Order: sequence, then structure tokens, then C-alpha cells
Amino acid sequence: MKASIVTIGDEILIGQIINTNSAWIALRLNSIGIKVHRMLSIGDSREEIIRCLDQEFASVDLIITTGGLGPTSDDITKQTLTEYFGTHLVFNSEAYKDVEAFFTARGLPLTEANRQQAMLPENALSLPNPEGTARGMWFTDGNRQLISLPGVPFEMEVIMENEVLPRLERMYASGALVHRTVMTAGIGESFLADKIAEWEKNLPPHFKLAYLPSPGVVRLRLSASGYDAAALNAEVNNLVEELQKIIPEYIFSLEDEPLPKAIGRMLLARKATLCTAESCTGGYIAHLITTIPGSSQYYKGSVVSYANEIKENLLGVSNNLLHEYGAVSRPVVEAMAAGARNLLKTDYAIAVSGIAGPDGGTVEKPVGLTWIAIAGPEGIVSTEFRLGNRRERNIQRAAVAALNELRKIIQ
Amino acid sequence: MKASIVTIGDEILIGQIINTNSAWIALRLNSIGIKVHRMLSIGDSREEIIRCLDQEFASVDLIITTGGLGPTSDDITKQTLTEYFGTHLVFNSEAYKDVEAFFTARGLPLTEANRQQAMLPENALSLPNPEGTARGMWFTDGNRQLISLPGVPFEMEVIMENEVLPRLERMYASGALVHRTVMTAGIGESFLADKIAEWEKNLPPHFKLAYLPSPGVVRLRLSASGYDAAALNAEVNNLVEELQKIIPEYIFSLEDEPLPKAIGRMLLARKATLCTAESCTGGYIAHLITTIPGSSQYYKGSVVSYANEIKENLLGVSNNLLHEYGAVSRPVVEAMAAGARNLLKTDYAIAVSGIAGPDGGTVEKPVGLTWIAIAGPEGIVSTEFRLGNRRERNIQRAAVAALNELRKIIQ
Repeated sequence: MKASIVTIGDEILIGQIINTNSAWIALRLNSIGIKVHRMLSIGDSREEIIRCLDQEFASVDLIITTGGLGPTSDDITKQTLTEYFGTHLVFNSEAYKDVEAFFTARGLPLTEANRQQAMLPENALSLPNPEGTARGMWFTDGNRQLISLPGVPFEMEVIMENEVLPRLERMYASGALVHRTVMTAGIGESFLADKIAEWEKNLPPHFKLAYLPSPGVVRLRLSASGYDAAALNAEVNNLVEELQKIIPEYIFSLEDEPLPKAIGRMLLARKATLCTAESCTGGYIAHLITTIPGSSQYYKGSVVSYANEIKENLLGVSNNLLHEYGAVSRPVVEAMAAGARNLLKTDYAIAVSGIAGPDGGTVEKPVGLTWIAIAGPEGIVSTEFRLGNRRERNIQRAAVAALNELRKIIQ
Repeated sequence: MKASIVTIGDEILIGQIINTNSAWIALRLNSIGIKVHRMLSIGDSREEIIRCLDQEFASVDLIITTGGLGPTSDDITKQTLTEYFGTHLVFNSEAYKDVEAFFTARGLPLTEANRQQAMLPENALSLPNPEGTARGMWFTDGNRQLISLPGVPFEMEVIMENEVLPRLERMYASGALVHRTVMTAGIGESFLADKIAEWEKNLPPHFKLAYLPSPGVVRLRLSASGYDAAALNAEVNNLVEELQKIIPEYIFSLEDEPLPKAIGRMLLARKATLCTAESCTGGYIAHLITTIPGSSQYYKGSVVSYANEIKENLLGVSNNLLHEYGAVSRPVVEAMAAGARNLLKTDYAIAVSGIAGPDGGTVEKPVGLTWIAIAGPEGIVSTEFRLGNRRERNIQRAAVAALNELRKIIQ
């Protein structure tokens, strides 16, 4: 099974937006055994959309498009696809209720342009969008299928996860299909691949392994296809047990859950509380922790001490330490962790201080240098990290590394 | 003049790499008046490359490719293009000297595979690569031109800047293409479209308007094509001035910059400092502010007061207020803002308290209810927002709304 991914929108062609949707969709399709043949980005033009579909359907039976479903006049994907598949737009009362509810919940009036979002092609499956007003559409014409999704990444992603992937999996998996995700942190994709090369090489032929990397975390997704789900599950269990023996220190979960959620689980099990003291990560660790529903059960808060005076006045880091060692140093990050634990009265405290860049680096302390400390009932552990040159990436990597340092202590 | 951009490489099709080259090239081509017709990503396959070039040359006279120029066996772009343009590979002694120098400088031995990098198509212009061993190649066949560049971004970029863009500019300097971005916040895409419908309808035919929405912010991009860049710029200026009269309260910048960057600019201009006190946003506002390089010049830090005791103990919110009104209320969020401004000694303080969900909502205070306060030298302003049901989205929207509330005061 092969698919093409088509992103529609002038904003991509002028280079104002980097197309991340295609890579996201490709990873997900790959994980259920669908290969991506080509990716295309085209403009908001009826002729270009039609020409592109003709070309792609010559090679593949499945096309996924994103973009052009908004309520404004430059959004022409819905009309063009409706025409392409020889159907027409009809009023969908379910979709209308959703659009109405969407605006009511936000206390906003419903405009005529928004009402149009409930006009959907008669002969296409409409795919609910819990995050927006543009439903996805699934057109079928003989063997040919086209799935049209909104261009806003989180809207596209939720429709893919809820509606598209489960259906595709049912359609193209002949027998049983079993997936298992093993979450790893603290090791890069290529090093991980080296460490488990033997194990990977010995996977039975009906198994497939995918590496899904994100900053600081690599998800290993094991997929097995066959006829007997119970037998497949047993096989998967054995393989995962073997894997746990090879890389025990990097695995933080056998469920598909983000690191902050796994940490929340561990803290709850220990009835322990957490706070953070952040300098270079600027609140990003607190954000990662508080994206998890229910995090208020174990997370009390953070002091983002961006200025040194906040480190001194709130966290009680002594002026002497700051002067003698500098803000990015083991003594200061340890004092930050101890100070935060004391101030916010928690069992554990994470502290981070580093040079995110692009400025502020020196020969001795280059951009990317980051100190992380974990204070807990058993004392303080601190570690030095040398990250990269890019500010945003350094913030991300430092935050995930800090969570992983805590995980090593409480797991 | 129109061009297509083709990225060649299996790693893109499996979603492992996000294609940033296409956007980079598109921005640069646009800046010299060349419009991008389509972007494609295809695999390392001779047949796919040939099919793709045939398709694109049916619509454009210029194709820029990246990728597939490395020394390993999966890199087949050079051979395929040489065949496509009916020429053959010859030894290029200049290129060989460069390859030799490249390895000598790094103290590495020269392998046979590396020597092959000096074999280049006879009838193509070869483009020196100061950052690597794969030269760019510029094929010409009648009106058709194809420029092949390495896939490593910094190698591609240096060849574009040094060799490709100056030549293209000399060749195609006839037309002009002008873009202008107007950044708006605090109004949804469809409401914005309603407000500026008349203005949009009266745009001259050589103008195009695009709405680029992201959470809380809508970018309006105006593009004009013609022959005289100065005249186009004057026209754009007039249209933007008209727009500013229609929606002055929503426009925060006439540059393509994120809201936290615009706020940083405004604070620096006022020599003012900022801090934050975050409950439901859990550090996300601090994160948005500190993604901007140099934010330490105006941003001092944050108290993420996730637990009520932190609101009391650090921010000095009285226990009475918390009991009488609840944490999500005007009196408490105002006390948080005043407390943070006092504690962190800044000119302005942003405070947010809300119910992000999914739990914690009541009939009186449903999920999505969010209070935002801005404390400044002139006093405290607070506003109630009713956001949606999804936790992550509520955090994002509350953070952007909070930044926008500050913007309204300091702009």
C-alpha cells in the first residue's frame, strides 16, 4: 500500500511556513505499514489541485491532503475535491451542531462564513474535528481514496489519530496487527540503534520496528502482523522483555506516554511532590509537567529565575556563589535546587541553569553548557550537559534531560 | 518566472527528517521575484526523478533539486541528471583539488568514493561547495534550467548564496514580487475576515491576501506582483495604511515577528521590565517570552503558583480572597499580578488563573474560564476569558491572550 501526501496552501510555497504536517503523517502511515510514495506542496489553485490528484492517482490509491479547508475565500480545497469526485455540497446537521457548539462554548457569534463549514460533500465520509470547525473528508472512488484534512497541525493530528489511522489500519491489515511502544529517554536514535542492533536483526520477519524520535526521547514502536492476536501479543511480550534486559536504564515506560506523564505516575506512587527552579529553560519544564491533566496532585510550582537577583532573593542562592562560579555552574544549580525545595516545600526539586544562546557563550562556558540538579530527600545530584548551538532546541533538550534526571532517581 | 523545488531522499518520505530546505529556497527565490510553483519530495529512485522532472518541466523552466549527491551508493541524483540531460561524467581537476583540500584540512584519508565526487557532468556548470565535497550542478537545455544542490542545509545554503542567487537575479530581474505581513492578535480568522471584507474585495487584481492562523494570532500576508518594485511597495504601503485604520486595535506588528518578540521590542523601547505569575498556564507564558533571544534584558522571571499555598506564601494572595472568591476569580488574579510585580520588582506583571481542564470545572466556573490581569505603573487591568475544552489548547490560548492583554497596554 502506497500513499502520496499533498499539502495545499500558498503560504508553504512562499516559504513562510515550514511543512511539518507531511513528516508527521509519513511517520504515522509508516507505523501502520503504508509507504509514502511522494510528498507535494501546491498552491490554493483549483487547476493545480486537479492536476496534482490526476498525477498522484496514476501511482497510488491513497492521497492525504492537508490545508485549504478554512472559512475564508482563499480556501478552495473542499469545493475542488467535491467537484473532482463528482459530488456536491449538502448541509450536514451534525457538523452544524459541532460548529454551533464550538462558537457557543467560546461565547462567540456564528458568522455566515462559519455556517459554510457545515456544508459537506454528499458522498464523502465526514470526519469530526474536536479542535476546529473544518471537518475532515474521506472520498472513495472505486479503489481510490482521498482523505482531506485541515492544515492546522493539531487539528490534522487529532483527526488522524481518532478517525483516519484506526480505519486505515482496519482496511489494510488483513489479519491481526499488534503494536507495542517502548519509550526511551537519554540516548540518541543512532546510539540506541547501535545498542539494539543484534536484537533488531533477530526480529521475526512479520515484525517491524520504527524509531520515532522527538527531542530527548525516542519511541520504539514494534508492530507485528499475523493471524492470531494472542500469539502475536505473547511474541511481543517476549521481545520487549529481551529489550528491557539490553537497555534497562533508558526505558521509562512500556506505554505510549510522554515522559512528564510517566514521571507524574512515579511521583503519585511515591506520594511525593515536585517543584522546579528554572533559568535557561525559562518555564518550559513547568509547562511540560503541567500539560499533564491532574499534575496539580504532585506539582506545586516553579520559580523561573531568569534574572540573577531572583536566584538570590527568592531561591536564596548566595551572591558569593554567583560571583565565584557564575550562574551556570554546579554550586549555583545545586543551591537553586535546594532553595526551591525549601521555598516551595516539596519532596523533590529540579533546577536548571545553562547558556541557551545564541549569545552569552564564552570559550570556557560555551553556548549549550547546561547544569541540571535534582534535590530530594536523599540529597542533591547534579550533572553537566553539553547541548548544541540552537536556542530553541537547547531549551527543549535541557528540559527533557532534566525530567530524565529526575526519572532516574525516582523510577 | 516560476520554479519547482524537488527534494530527493528516502529519509524525507519516511518522515524522519522535516524538509526545511524547500521553505528556505522558496523564501530566497521569492525575494528575487521568482515564484515557486510546486514543491515535491521524492525517493532516491532513477525512475521517480525522471518522471518528476518531466512533470515539472511541463509547467516551469527552472527546477532546483536538493539531495542525493553524497558519495554512497544510495545517492543517484548526479548519475540520473547527467543521463537526463544527455551528457556524461568527466574528471574535474578543480573539483578534485577542492575535495583533496577538504580531507587534508580535516586530517582524513581520501577514499575512492570521495574521489568520485570530482566526476562531474561535462555540459553542466559546476558550483563550488566550500562546506562539503559535493559540488552543485547547473544544467541548461534550451530554456530549461536545473540546479542540483546537496541536501545538507548549510551546504545547500552557501551554494545558493554564493553561486545561484546572484546568477538567477541577473538572468530574471525583469519582474518584481513584494510581500508584506501584518500581524494580528485577539481576533479569530473568520471575524477578522468579516471586518476587512470590504478592504479585501477592493484589492487590485495583482494583489493576493492570505490568512495564516496560529493559536491566538492571525498573520495577514499581502503579495503583489508586477514590474516595478518601488511602485508595488508604495501600493502595499497605502493598502496597509488603510488596513491599520480599519483594525488598529488588533495589529501588533507590520513585520513578520511573533507576539513575544513584538512585546520585547515594546518593553525595550519603554525601558520597562516584566515578570509573570502563572497558575493554569503553568510556565507557558514564561516559555514563550524566553524563546526570544535577549529576553533577559526585560524579563526577570516567573512564579508558577500551581498550588494555592504558593499563591499565598510567595505571591502574598490572602487566604481570605482564595476562600471567598476561589483561585479563578478577578480578586485573586489581580492579587497575583500585584504580588508578582512587588516580589520580582518589575514595571509590569502578567498574572493568569483559569481552569485548563479536563477536570476541575463546575457549572459556575466551567473548564476554559480564565482570568488575566496586567499590573503596571498605572494600575491593574483584568479580563475574563471563556476558552475551550481542550487542556493543551486552553494553556496556549490563555498564554497568547495574556501576552496580548499586556500588548494592548504597552503598545
